[in-house]
Amino acid sequence: MIGELINVGTEILIGDIVNTNAQYISKELSNIGFSIYYHTTVGDNPNRLKETLENSINRSDVVILTGGLGPTQDDLTKEILAEILGVELVLDQEIYDEITERIYKSGYSQVTQNNYKQAYIPKGASPIPNSNGTAPGILAEMDNKSIILLPGPPREMIPMFEQKVLPYLMKKTDTKFYSNYYKITSIGESAVEDRLLDLIDKQKNPTIATYAKPGEVLIRVTANGESREEVESLLQNYDVVIKERFGQNIYAFEDLSLQEAVGKSLVEKNVTISIAESCTAGQIASRLSEFPGISQSLHSGIVCYSNEAKVRFVGVQQKTLDEYGAVSEEVAREMLQGLYEKNKTDIVVATTGIAGPGGGSEDKPVGTVYIGILYKGQYTVTRHQFRGDRKRIQLWASNEALNKIRKAIV
Amino acid sequence: MIGELINVGTEILIGDIVNTNAQYISKELSNIGFSIYYHTTVGDNPNRLKETLENSINRSDVVILTGGLGPTQDDLTKEILAEILGVELVLDQEIYDEITERIYKSGYSQVTQNNYKQAYIPKGASPIPNSNGTAPGILAEMDNKSIILLPGPPREMIPMFEQKVLPYLMKKTDTKFYSNYYKITSIGESAVEDRLLDLIDKQKNPTIATYAKPGEVLIRVTANGESREEVESLLQNYDVVIKERFGQNIYAFEDLSLQEAVGKSLVEKNVTISIAESCTAGQIASRLSEFPGISQSLHSGIVCYSNEAKVRFVGVQQKTLDEYGAVSEEVAREMLQGLYEKNKTDIVVATTGIAGPGGGSEDKPVGTVYIGILYKGQYTVTRHQFRGDRKRIQLWASNEALNKIRKAIV
Repeated sequence: MIGELINVGTEILIGDIVNTNAQYISKELSNIGFSIYYHTTVGDNPNRLKETLENSINRSDVVILTGGLGPTQDDLTKEILAEILGVELVLDQEIYDEITERIYKSGYSQVTQNNYKQAYIPKGASPIPNSNGTAPGILAEMDNKSIILLPGPPREMIPMFEQKVLPYLMKKTDTKFYSNYYKITSIGESAVEDRLLDLIDKQKNPTIATYAKPGEVLIRVTANGESREEVESLLQNYDVVIKERFGQNIYAFEDLSLQEAVGKSLVEKNVTISIAESCTAGQIASRLSEFPGISQSLHSGIVCYSNEAKVRFVGVQQKTLDEYGAVSEEVAREMLQGLYEKNKTDIVVATTGIAGPGGGSEDKPVGTVYIGILYKGQYTVTRHQFRGDRKRIQLWASNEALNKIRKAIV
Repeated sequence: MIGELINVGTEILIGDIVNTNAQYISKELSNIGFSIYYHTTVGDNPNRLKETLENSINRSDVVILTGGLGPTQDDLTKEILAEILGVELVLDQEIYDEITERIYKSGYSQVTQNNYKQAYIPKGASPIPNSNGTAPGILAEMDNKSIILLPGPPREMIPMFEQKVLPYLMKKTDTKFYSNYYKITSIGESAVEDRLLDLIDKQKNPTIATYAKPGEVLIRVTANGESREEVESLLQNYDVVIKERFGQNIYAFEDLSLQEAVGKSLVEKNVTISIAESCTAGQIASRLSEFPGISQSLHSGIVCYSNEAKVRFVGVQQKTLDEYGAVSEEVAREMLQGLYEKNKTDIVVATTGIAGPGGGSEDKPVGTVYIGILYKGQYTVTRHQFRGDRKRIQLWASNEALNKIRKAIV
């Protein structure tokens, strides 16, 4: 089934508003198996709107329009549709009564002629009631195709879409769709794609899509079939493969941020934590603190950016700094020890590294980061080499540290 | 001048991302007097893309495309353009060298053949350098029309648009356009708009546009005229009004993040700082640390999330916590004192508050935050009431603290 969208509105064309309707409707249509080939935004201009709509009806099974249904002279989506259908606009008594009632209820003493413009619909089409505004939607069929007109404001459009349009469209397909989600960290989007290339290349059912946010990748696997069982067995095959390929880099099976997943885990398992951050400078603590209720787990963080702070607040020895440098395994280890001695939290985490752009050397180039974790008496310090600019190095270092916390307490 | 946009990307068609590029470019084009009649979104499908592009070139003077310039086989915007122009793709040596350099700099030891796909451009077209990614943009002219190809990711597209495309398009009109920028903090976008409503309502020349990022608003005032002098006098009138209305909330006259502005100021003025963060949990330190070279100013940060940490690391007295509670002016003041005694930095900053959703009371509802600053022997603690969810409260509190630092050292 091929669908497409037309968004009518000069306010979109001049950049006054973002076209969130296009995203909402597209996502909903994709979820029930429609292919969307085009979005078009066009202004309230009769010729351009008519040409666009005719073109869309020609090439798609379902055309959904938003906007241009209001009471003013500018609003002419409905008039254009009637022209294309070759019918006239007729008064819908039910809509007429609803508009009257709604307007008197809002405290106006008079209904203007303009308002009644909204009670006219193309002959043969059905109105879609609007419980949040006066402009009804319209559903018309022509040559086995469906044309659906909805108002522009999302708070009117979305409930109408959910309550009337979606059930109507779902009846047009018998297929059932389900998805699995995998949230990945410590691997970039293109590397994630590389590992899935064989599956993406041959994809048909299930389909695989990846979505990247800074430092996180979401994999969505969607399958379809005639029954839930059939779909689930298709998903199951891929589930095995994806878990095998990404292992510990999968930190959630829903669209959760890494800090939410780790924060939730710390709180649920009642694990206390303190953190000594040099190159990440408070980012790990601050990301964890996004999770509500984290105060029962997050004891403290030390942003020991200067050497003085490393000595004063986390008990690193000046001698160790002099001998090995601030960015070293030895310093990371003393940060863990020192903070543990002070706080006795279940977990202690430490980072020290070179975020750049300056400060790198041959031995320890920009992007060198030591990440230490102390859990149940076990010290582990690993050396990493992150790539990219300062912001990216800090982000990847804090991601890696968060994922180490997660793996430790699993 | 008639312009139109084509956004190429399946991720937009299936509703995975909102098409913010369309809004951004439309706003910019409208500001310099272009009329935009259409936005079209189309997927990476050669036939549909070609038909769409041909159609657009026919009916508009300038066609701007975003997306489909990446290194994979799916990306074919450039290939389609070459087909329409009737030319071949040729290797651009400068772009080739830039890609090689960028990739080696990021620490990869090998450049794949795919990456070099991006160094090919349609013969006769000009590349637009991309300083935030490997895909260059392309500017082609044909029959007095301009076709401009830009990458999809906004962080690559926007700087290219500002630096190259906008100046190019502005030359197509005889009118001169200049803009002033004002970066505002501690006021939300709709409140900023409210304060400008009279100017926005009657706007013609200059025009005013606002752009919001979390916690920051950019005001751009653009005027046009026949000479630089004429334009500058128009801008000057508005400059007076805007400075009067926003005063100390203006933290920069260019599009700088608040942390960059403050970090830069600290480093330039050689001011040292240490920070005690309770409710902001390291966010202030971590945001400051985005600025390269901050290590000479940022001494340390203490994320004293627990009361124990407040006592241990910043010298708050248990008695004060018991008597006034952790979220109080008294505790904020002791955080300042304690940290100053330890570190003797030029500035000390402290935050303590209730980020929610739990923990509020009638006296101190969720969103209550005390922010303290100690500079040149002067203690100032102010109480704030922020609105919104946990994340927003933390963000606004760290913004307010950053702005206080800025104002102190101006």
